[in-house]
Amino acid sequence: MAFPCVDQLEQRTQKFLQSFDGGPEPSYSNPVSGYSLYQHNEPFLLDHGGILPKFEIAYESWGELNADKSNVILLHTGLSASSHAKSHAANTAPGWWEKFIGPGLAIDTNRFHVICTNVIGGCYGSTGPSSIDPKDNKPYATRFPIITIFDMVRAQFDMLSSMGIHKLHASVGASMGGMQSLAAALLFKERVGKVISISAAARSHPYSIALRFTQRQVLMADPNWNKGFYYDKVPPHGGMKLAREIATISYRSGPEWEQRFGRKRAQPTTTPSLCADFLIETYLDHQGERFCLQYDPNSLLYVSKAMDMFDLSASTSAETAIRRARNTLRLQEGKGSSAPENAATPPEEQAAACVTGTPAAELKAKEEIQDDPKAQLNDLKQGLSTIKDIPTLVLGIQSDILFPVWQQKEVADCLRETGNKSVTYYELDSMYGHDAFLLEIVNVGSAVKGHLELKE
Amino acid sequence: MAFPCVDQLEQRTQKFLQSFDGGPEPSYSNPVSGYSLYQHNEPFLLDHGGILPKFEIAYESWGELNADKSNVILLHTGLSASSHAKSHAANTAPGWWEKFIGPGLAIDTNRFHVICTNVIGGCYGSTGPSSIDPKDNKPYATRFPIITIFDMVRAQFDMLSSMGIHKLHASVGASMGGMQSLAAALLFKERVGKVISISAAARSHPYSIALRFTQRQVLMADPNWNKGFYYDKVPPHGGMKLAREIATISYRSGPEWEQRFGRKRAQPTTTPSLCADFLIETYLDHQGERFCLQYDPNSLLYVSKAMDMFDLSASTSAETAIRRARNTLRLQEGKGSSAPENAATPPEEQAAACVTGTPAAELKAKEEIQDDPKAQLNDLKQGLSTIKDIPTLVLGIQSDILFPVWQQKEVADCLRETGNKSVTYYELDSMYGHDAFLLEIVNVGSAVKGHLELKE
Repeated sequence: MAFPCVDQLEQRTQKFLQSFDGGPEPSYSNPVSGYSLYQHNEPFLLDHGGILPKFEIAYESWGELNADKSNVILLHTGLSASSHAKSHAANTAPGWWEKFIGPGLAIDTNRFHVICTNVIGGCYGSTGPSSIDPKDNKPYATRFPIITIFDMVRAQFDMLSSMGIHKLHASVGASMGGMQSLAAALLFKERVGKVISISAAARSHPYSIALRFTQRQVLMADPNWNKGFYYDKVPPHGGMKLAREIATISYRSGPEWEQRFGRKRAQPTTTPSLCADFLIETYLDHQGERFCLQYDPNSLLYVSKAMDMFDLSASTSAETAIRRARNTLRLQEGKGSSAPENAATPPEEQAAACVTGTPAAELKAKEEIQDDPKAQLNDLKQGLSTIKDIPTLVLGIQSDILFPVWQQKEVADCLRETGNKSVTYYELDSMYGHDAFLLEIVNVGSAVKGHLELKE
Repeated sequence: MAFPCVDQLEQRTQKFLQSFDGGPEPSYSNPVSGYSLYQHNEPFLLDHGGILPKFEIAYESWGELNADKSNVILLHTGLSASSHAKSHAANTAPGWWEKFIGPGLAIDTNRFHVICTNVIGGCYGSTGPSSIDPKDNKPYATRFPIITIFDMVRAQFDMLSSMGIHKLHASVGASMGGMQSLAAALLFKERVGKVISISAAARSHPYSIALRFTQRQVLMADPNWNKGFYYDKVPPHGGMKLAREIATISYRSGPEWEQRFGRKRAQPTTTPSLCADFLIETYLDHQGERFCLQYDPNSLLYVSKAMDMFDLSASTSAETAIRRARNTLRLQEGKGSSAPENAATPPEEQAAACVTGTPAAELKAKEEIQDDPKAQLNDLKQGLSTIKDIPTLVLGIQSDILFPVWQQKEVADCLRETGNKSVTYYELDSMYGHDAFLLEIVNVGSAVKGHLELKE
């Protein structure tokens, strides 16, 4: 039996090995160009105790900034997207929300100044694991510290401050971007006018964590991953391809594939094979191929982990606040480093030396909440009460498996119960699953436009 | 940062390498003992043109066979199960349907003689890829021919014939077993009294194919898989572990994990890590660990592929019938081999030389059906009309992601529309997803008992 899918991986590895004699290496910021850079040259404390000595954020913008800088929309991206949401003179390639941004469109560039950033931890121009650690001029790799969704947002708001933008008209995002848009309102409630959170959640649930866990596991099992130190070697292209195939299953829906592929085979006259055979399989294979050298594997690990840890519950915010307060003290005392100093030491010593996990004192209370679904929901409501005065649009897709619609309903219900009088909640019956936010231009677009432009 | 999950895989590989100096190798039939063997010593033609020169089936049985051999229930297994459905004197370990089989239980051993087999292609005693090819006394590995669900059933019925059992009281199964139970009725309608099909489908749909495809891909990407030839080497334990982790996501449900794990971390006081960290992750890790040396990786490939190809539509049955007729002729002419002779030749030559895929003449008609959902459904109804006189219980679980409940509804609706007057259809609201058939002893058990014992 022939196994072209296995041969293909081996051939690509060989090609890489040959190319090191002078050929090109994958450069993860290649797909993106024409972005601007915000430079932050002060140490930046992260939620879990890591410190970036400095960082950069890649961003792009569309539409005119008005005189009092009050017409800004901060657009947050999903896991693997760049700041290139829309084509412009410096990069004419279509962006990931090309048809949602423009004159008269969902985000109307005649009215608004739209800014989109590549998140920290990413690889499209912003500081992430593939960036150079100033300490030794080598890529951070897995020496990069653990980051959270809040860290990403805090970095974005440092950038906004440097631009003299005090208050956003709106914080907008889908998927991980929908987590960020909520997080922004929680962190900076005075600086966010409206919130749009599409196909996201107020806390990551175990099924979504499981889906991302398997992606990380297949990537890390690729021998080329080499514990993250592959930047001058063969990248873990096989593991990345597999991770993307798994991800793709969670991005679309059964009903769509039923219509699009059904049980059709790619080459019906041939013997069934163990490599890609049905059309659905060649589709997954193609998605994996397209992605495997485009995005930095370590960025996938860090950013997907940040999604897993996302939780807007009050108890989690309190934990983080305590950790940050203690670590701020450490930072002021000059003890900071890019990663917790003792990452390789046993957990008990680690916990004693620096504050990284849940402080022991808070642990018991946390466990009691975690054992009681009602207490959990109250905890979440309390966390969300910070944004009870911010008009919020929550939108979900009924066929979404990764962020099932009950998770958006949870956000909307909690917000309403905190007394938020301006919560709009829509469910779409699109068959495009989680990816609907990229494809449902009219249905998603109208909701976005209405929320952004309605006078309240 | 430490990566214990990566180190663990490497340590197991090293342990295997050391053990080859005289230590034990994994033996995939180890977990099972005390089964009987049916020996079939004639060449056995498979649906896709392969021929097994001979085969064995491992089986176990419970309850007394009555005088006229009319009280037999053939119990079909899911993908990775053995014939050990229930403990007995020769193997006292609990079986996979331990609490469903016994005096007074769902399958009442005071009334029925239950036979359960390990499928061909499997590794628990029946002939599969890890079996010895008599041609060269080496394991078949991926020289094993492609098999179908119908091939498995045909082999089972050869065994029944050898036992003098002409007609089953019932053909019963869940998951892949529920495919087999329907296939048995289609192939041998005179020999099947009743059918029970739980959490299965009449044809595999693209979403389920996608889920199995990614499992096969991660397994085949493990360098230790070695295109299937690992039997005297390090087995692809890492790939198997990953495949099982992905499978586990499709076997359970979000709501169950919400209750069981929520957002609890395994060691809350430690820094978040990229290996297993949340409880849900340690659960998946554990499931992978438990399975990775228990089941033959090549069996997983062949048996899961058989599930993908499953389709009871009339056009598919017609295709198979044509292929079988032509290949029977070849077999009689003595041209048969265990694998299509020309598996490595280009597809066009392959199609010309032996009949393995869809015959070109039938291809156009097939394509027209595949482009029209109504025609597809009619095709399926026509295929299922063979069993219009057999009382059938179809049962589905509302939280099942792998075989969503609409697929069981499809079976029941089609059967009813063919004129079958005795179709019972139940939906369970269990939160256990696809695995509910193993766990819902009362809800699933009562339905099974009622259907088996009701006089019609």
